[in-house]
Amino acid sequence: MSTTTTNEQPGQDPHGVSRRGFLAGMPVAVGGAAVALSAQAAPAARAEDGRGPTPQSTESEQLASQTIPFDGKNQAGIAEPEQAYMNLLGLNIKPGRGLKDMTFLMRSWTADMRRLTQGKNPLGSLEKELSTSPANLTVTCGYGPGFFSAIGAERAKPSWLKPLPAYKTDKLEEQWGQTDLALQVCCDDPVTLAFAVRHLLRSSIDYVEVAWVQQGFMNADGTLAEGATPRNLFGQKDGTVNPRSSEELNDHVWITEGPEWQKNGTCMIARRIFMNLDTWELLDRTSREVVIGRDLENGAPLSGGEEFDDIDPKKADRTGLPIIDPMSHAARAKAPKDKPEQVIKRRPYQYSLPPDPKVVAAMTRPDDEAAIISNVGLVFICFQKDPLKQFDPIQKRLAEGDRLNQWITHIGSAVYFVPPGVSKDGTEGDKYWGASLLESLQH
Amino acid sequence: MSTTTTNEQPGQDPHGVSRRGFLAGMPVAVGGAAVALSAQAAPAARAEDGRGPTPQSTESEQLASQTIPFDGKNQAGIAEPEQAYMNLLGLNIKPGRGLKDMTFLMRSWTADMRRLTQGKNPLGSLEKELSTSPANLTVTCGYGPGFFSAIGAERAKPSWLKPLPAYKTDKLEEQWGQTDLALQVCCDDPVTLAFAVRHLLRSSIDYVEVAWVQQGFMNADGTLAEGATPRNLFGQKDGTVNPRSSEELNDHVWITEGPEWQKNGTCMIARRIFMNLDTWELLDRTSREVVIGRDLENGAPLSGGEEFDDIDPKKADRTGLPIIDPMSHAARAKAPKDKPEQVIKRRPYQYSLPPDPKVVAAMTRPDDEAAIISNVGLVFICFQKDPLKQFDPIQKRLAEGDRLNQWITHIGSAVYFVPPGVSKDGTEGDKYWGASLLESLQH
Repeated sequence: MSTTTTNEQPGQDPHGVSRRGFLAGMPVAVGGAAVALSAQAAPAARAEDGRGPTPQSTESEQLASQTIPFDGKNQAGIAEPEQAYMNLLGLNIKPGRGLKDMTFLMRSWTADMRRLTQGKNPLGSLEKELSTSPANLTVTCGYGPGFFSAIGAERAKPSWLKPLPAYKTDKLEEQWGQTDLALQVCCDDPVTLAFAVRHLLRSSIDYVEVAWVQQGFMNADGTLAEGATPRNLFGQKDGTVNPRSSEELNDHVWITEGPEWQKNGTCMIARRIFMNLDTWELLDRTSREVVIGRDLENGAPLSGGEEFDDIDPKKADRTGLPIIDPMSHAARAKAPKDKPEQVIKRRPYQYSLPPDPKVVAAMTRPDDEAAIISNVGLVFICFQKDPLKQFDPIQKRLAEGDRLNQWITHIGSAVYFVPPGVSKDGTEGDKYWGASLLESLQH
Repeated sequence: MSTTTTNEQPGQDPHGVSRRGFLAGMPVAVGGAAVALSAQAAPAARAEDGRGPTPQSTESEQLASQTIPFDGKNQAGIAEPEQAYMNLLGLNIKPGRGLKDMTFLMRSWTADMRRLTQGKNPLGSLEKELSTSPANLTVTCGYGPGFFSAIGAERAKPSWLKPLPAYKTDKLEEQWGQTDLALQVCCDDPVTLAFAVRHLLRSSIDYVEVAWVQQGFMNADGTLAEGATPRNLFGQKDGTVNPRSSEELNDHVWITEGPEWQKNGTCMIARRIFMNLDTWELLDRTSREVVIGRDLENGAPLSGGEEFDDIDPKKADRTGLPIIDPMSHAARAKAPKDKPEQVIKRRPYQYSLPPDPKVVAAMTRPDDEAAIISNVGLVFICFQKDPLKQFDPIQKRLAEGDRLNQWITHIGSAVYFVPPGVSKDGTEGDKYWGASLLESLQH
């Protein structure tokens, strides 16, 4: 039983694509038939000898067989709801490697991941048993400035592909900085994820080296209500304000102007954000809600309504004071009315790592009222057409005045151009990642 | 919809307890009813305004509501199939903390985890929204030798509760060594797991400090066929030979003799095992199978039969040579006929971490035919009545001659006494973890 969720179909709300969507849509009788079938299929001898369990093919394998199309106008791993696990690989190109090598690498990664994301073993891989549970695997490839330098196309790179402006509250660490390439690997099965990462690295060992790996997680498949917004480890709903429909994604995420090779691509920003759980937990719930500007339980703006209603920064209480603190996270993040372009597609993951004395030393502030034992935060990933017009003004506002800054610190930052999607025959998008860019340079 | 899987019921095969078992057993009509209900329940205005998704309560929440009983004769997290995620916390007791403190800590942890594992917020926790997806959460508590010293019961500790004998192939690192306490936290939802770990640590900050955290994973819920043996990152099935029935667990895992406070407890061993993927992958499939002694695909012994059939070390090929290499992993691990007690309950998790120069330096061997880029291995956890009678002879045989030793290195080792299970009113097991031991010391 192979079931497919949609990467991108014009006119269809990608958010409607559910990690369990096929289940809700499946005729009930099918579920019943599957149960009956597997019960019959169990060899009686094995079931009764008591020496071992009987492998059966039942609903238990539902998640394993779910796939997200690799091919499409845009790369996968952007519009789809987050899978449970994510590894973001920051890679640097080895000295002396250039256009020819990168072309080979892109062809090779594309061919391998086109197979692996669909549950097929990459050619030449001896581990066919580790390819059988695609579980919504997606692999998204991005190019840093160094990629353009390596292929001799420095002048062709998008004008925004450079370090983001410095923000007041940044405490960036080199270890989470810009790299030449990024691979965002997301999957609902951590074993498949580990195998995909391993395969990507071993197949590219002659071309790139690993600068960093950022590992994150989100609620597991089957633990969130359909379409519900996940929560981060501060307990807040994280991702309420997000473009979801195809129209919104076209407006804010997919590049529609400029050179052909950029069209249907996007920009990926990866920021690493430490969250100081130790001092955050000193706040009572009311204070936490004031900081965020939203109700903790349902995510609704404190000005009223429900989660997806707009915040009303002007609504005042009986004393005439605004109900939503103007310095709250929600108030500061909100785009001004005359700047409707200030929208980004957030796709963050949590991290929760063992306590680390280096983190304690780097993150402790003189005014902290609790000692740090936590090593928790966000691998904050977002997508937009142009980071300088969309992410930058939002982050500038937040850095200048968000109450939440007392509990969070940006410690990593990198920007990537994400080339458009691919199709095997090149009828939609490129033949392989970056093909139209790379081939335009090969005269 | 709350669904329960069984921790331990006499006469019932705990292996039959499936992470999706309730689904297969659930009348089909219930699933259908749930779908219909949630579709009706969606507020029409919300569904049509196009501004946000409609949270619905459908099958998508199945995993969230699954629970494993906290109370029982034995602690949970031992007999049950592995959940997808595991954090093993190694904790040391702060100087000066003694019997009274440990009694308080055990009461507090027991009360909190009795609630959290069942989807209820621990008393005093302000993060009720992070407690709603128990997703088979289990928390298993173990005591190292230092715990017995701290409570003034050094002489009472089990005779086997001491460092394991040194094995020839060990390259133990202090950073993964013995601690006073261990908490094995397992869950199918990584967000719930992170919250449980956070809650355990913050509630014990005055009593213990973290020595290490070992984070591991296994196939996600819904990616393995019912009862199928999971695979490790070498691609082998890992856990074929495991006690599963209540009878086998009573024979090999649960302590049945000695002082009352030990009965229904067990011994937990935690070994950290580095697996050199870089050199392993140089082997072709046939060579890998020779090393293991089993078919890679179906896990059957090379001597014939199916996965759960015994290996036949004497079976010879036409030339008279044994089909299973006597130095293969399966042949060396097998208990001699006159030592039927040499059985352990394995419950290993994988780790796959970012490449690390320190690992490369420590793990590179002079005869390696590939440079190490991997940082992959097992958090090998196993349970048995007596490690010196069960684990030790097996590991001694493996250290002396297992072909697999060329690709694996044991880098961590710790042993814990796991006290019996608990029940709220003390009718089954202790009232709280270690109660009968701790109260016997309070005169």
